[in-house]
Amino acid sequence: MNTEIIRKDFPILKQEVNGHPIVYFDNAATTQRPEPVLRAVYNYDITGNGNPHRGAHVLAISASQAYDGSKETVRDFIHAASVEEIIYTRNATESLNLIERSYAETHLKKGDRILITIAEHHSNLVPWQRACEKTGAELDYIYVDKETGHFREEDLAKIDDPRVKIFSFAQVSNVLGIDFDPVPLIERAHRHGAIVIMDGAQGAPHKHTDVQALDCDFYTFSGHKMCALTGIGVLYGKKALLEEMEPFLRGGDMIEQVKEQETTFAPLPARFEAGTQYTEGAVSLAAAINYLQHIGFDFIREQERKLTARALEGMKQISFVHIVGPDNPEEKEGLIAFTVDGVHPEDVAQILSADGICIRTGHHCAEPLHTYLGINSTCRASFYFYNTEDEVDYFLDKLAQVRKVMGYRD
Amino acid sequence: MNTEIIRKDFPILKQEVNGHPIVYFDNAATTQRPEPVLRAVYNYDITGNGNPHRGAHVLAISASQAYDGSKETVRDFIHAASVEEIIYTRNATESLNLIERSYAETHLKKGDRILITIAEHHSNLVPWQRACEKTGAELDYIYVDKETGHFREEDLAKIDDPRVKIFSFAQVSNVLGIDFDPVPLIERAHRHGAIVIMDGAQGAPHKHTDVQALDCDFYTFSGHKMCALTGIGVLYGKKALLEEMEPFLRGGDMIEQVKEQETTFAPLPARFEAGTQYTEGAVSLAAAINYLQHIGFDFIREQERKLTARALEGMKQISFVHIVGPDNPEEKEGLIAFTVDGVHPEDVAQILSADGICIRTGHHCAEPLHTYLGINSTCRASFYFYNTEDEVDYFLDKLAQVRKVMGYRD
Repeated sequence: MNTEIIRKDFPILKQEVNGHPIVYFDNAATTQRPEPVLRAVYNYDITGNGNPHRGAHVLAISASQAYDGSKETVRDFIHAASVEEIIYTRNATESLNLIERSYAETHLKKGDRILITIAEHHSNLVPWQRACEKTGAELDYIYVDKETGHFREEDLAKIDDPRVKIFSFAQVSNVLGIDFDPVPLIERAHRHGAIVIMDGAQGAPHKHTDVQALDCDFYTFSGHKMCALTGIGVLYGKKALLEEMEPFLRGGDMIEQVKEQETTFAPLPARFEAGTQYTEGAVSLAAAINYLQHIGFDFIREQERKLTARALEGMKQISFVHIVGPDNPEEKEGLIAFTVDGVHPEDVAQILSADGICIRTGHHCAEPLHTYLGINSTCRASFYFYNTEDEVDYFLDKLAQVRKVMGYRD
Repeated sequence: MNTEIIRKDFPILKQEVNGHPIVYFDNAATTQRPEPVLRAVYNYDITGNGNPHRGAHVLAISASQAYDGSKETVRDFIHAASVEEIIYTRNATESLNLIERSYAETHLKKGDRILITIAEHHSNLVPWQRACEKTGAELDYIYVDKETGHFREEDLAKIDDPRVKIFSFAQVSNVLGIDFDPVPLIERAHRHGAIVIMDGAQGAPHKHTDVQALDCDFYTFSGHKMCALTGIGVLYGKKALLEEMEPFLRGGDMIEQVKEQETTFAPLPARFEAGTQYTEGAVSLAAAINYLQHIGFDFIREQERKLTARALEGMKQISFVHIVGPDNPEEKEGLIAFTVDGVHPEDVAQILSADGICIRTGHHCAEPLHTYLGINSTCRASFYFYNTEDEVDYFLDKLAQVRKVMGYRD
């Protein structure tokens, strides 16, 4: 496996900006889709498209097979015990909102606590504010060391508080990018019966994830951050929990029997999927998983580590660049948030964009973390397996010139 | 414009089942996608894919343009006053659930009424059961004449009841398929200040719809029933209503400022769209609208009427076939629900499917209507502009033989 062959699958990477091929380092926001994924969607639409779970005709059957088959691929991918535990949503955000609406709102009460970390994405934070508002529970945070970015030991003790009923955290922070072992945290929360939610949006695309080995109660991720189309996300939940939860959206295919004044609901997973399913999304997600598994997660991780190490090494040489969180490649997943002395992140991004380099700026939907760290906004370069060391070198070269472009005479 | 040329855009229609090209008469469930729509999605993914509304780089910008541009196409399509009034959802089902969660649940109280018709799809019925459960409001129905399928005059008077705070009905029933003028009903409900919701799932794909001329307060429809991909739906709402509504899903892009314990929300329409947007869906919907407008709604309606009239005429000749609702083509949109004496709808569908004919069977997500009419299940043939009179003739021919295949000696 090598990136030269892989990149042939991504026609978008051949596009040029001002005479230079695009360098796409915004993979933590959304990744690109390879030809095999796009082809799978197209082939589905020209040969098998119908409405799944409805009707007895050939196209309804082929649509059902495509949709249900995709679920099996996802089940296997995260090693869930059963496809009943795999719910398709729009994205990880909707998955987390579903848990908030159908679990938190009905299970929490005044005096209870929801514990998250200060490094959460808004999707794993704003819904919990609502749950607290509706139930009288309190939202508490595990803070990080401002230098190292690691969880503060004294704050981890909050997990042991029996008032904590829900503990939710990102597998990988989309700003700090720290690689850590979540199992001890999950075990601590389970010791007193708290429910553990893992937001795998920045995890599932990059490393082998086994929900049964982790023993988390819910796990969420998005297809578009792992080579599938946008609009498809996954909610994994342990069957016993999903079964006792109130249905979320209501309508076709999630019902068993509808009378004028009352309705009984379908078994899992249909119970949580109202209306016509997003079949192309399901097809794209299965194709993306097959593609990633063909590339291999060993290769994916190795390539990301290589790129991250090279980038960190180079960035540390540029005196006016400051890395947010750890700068040791061993502790880091494939994303680096940083600031540039005297240059606003927006300007950094615009200058780099003129040279074809796509990085993200802002608070990356993690405003409380930025506030806590005392910074308004950062730049972020995030890698995927199709990125190359040449791209990193080009990025470092252009980054080193950013202050000069802004008129500084360093 | 003629169907022979149009059908070249739909490669799936060339597929064969047992030596006969597929006859796709399940368009009320989901339509097929033409090449220009599939190509638009593919082109977006190989040239412009990024995360919209995030980041300053070229691909973030092209994604934003594609997404926001699609909204403008939809605004124009239904003649909304502003793109702020266009919210993207997964499907009409989610649109209706959003209204239930963010409007009904917070605006209704004990003693209030929600009025719907007995011919509603579950998506416009089951959410209202929940709203009543949560608020103490009552759900009431406008029933139809069991022979003609038309609303009973005495029941329409229910609209005038000032206790009715929400009046929600399908523009076209997906079983009865009756074409009627909704404006007088909307005016009646508005006279005492009720909110009017129109479920346009079976309307928008087939006829010119102007939400300002209708003056409905909310209008919902799905892309997949009008040549777009699955997974994209629309919620139109009057700006003043949307602005006072509680946000629904929470997370990235729908916020203004997030602090640890509180959040302020973004203006419309972002306020109701949490997380990474379904860009391919937006692109496909704009491409589908452009495609349908190129075909022309005059042609679409004329072709559907021609097919419906021919089918009804032929079906009336078959003594053992019974049409549900009116059998006068003048009153009918392009869908026909029916039963066959002595043959279960599932068997009818399977027999026809062996000849390549795709029809739907069951209660079509309208179980209360079926219960009310005293039938368990029906068959349904539903047409779109790419269907042909030859297909109708072939269907009639095979339908006439269904009892013989089942062993009846008529």
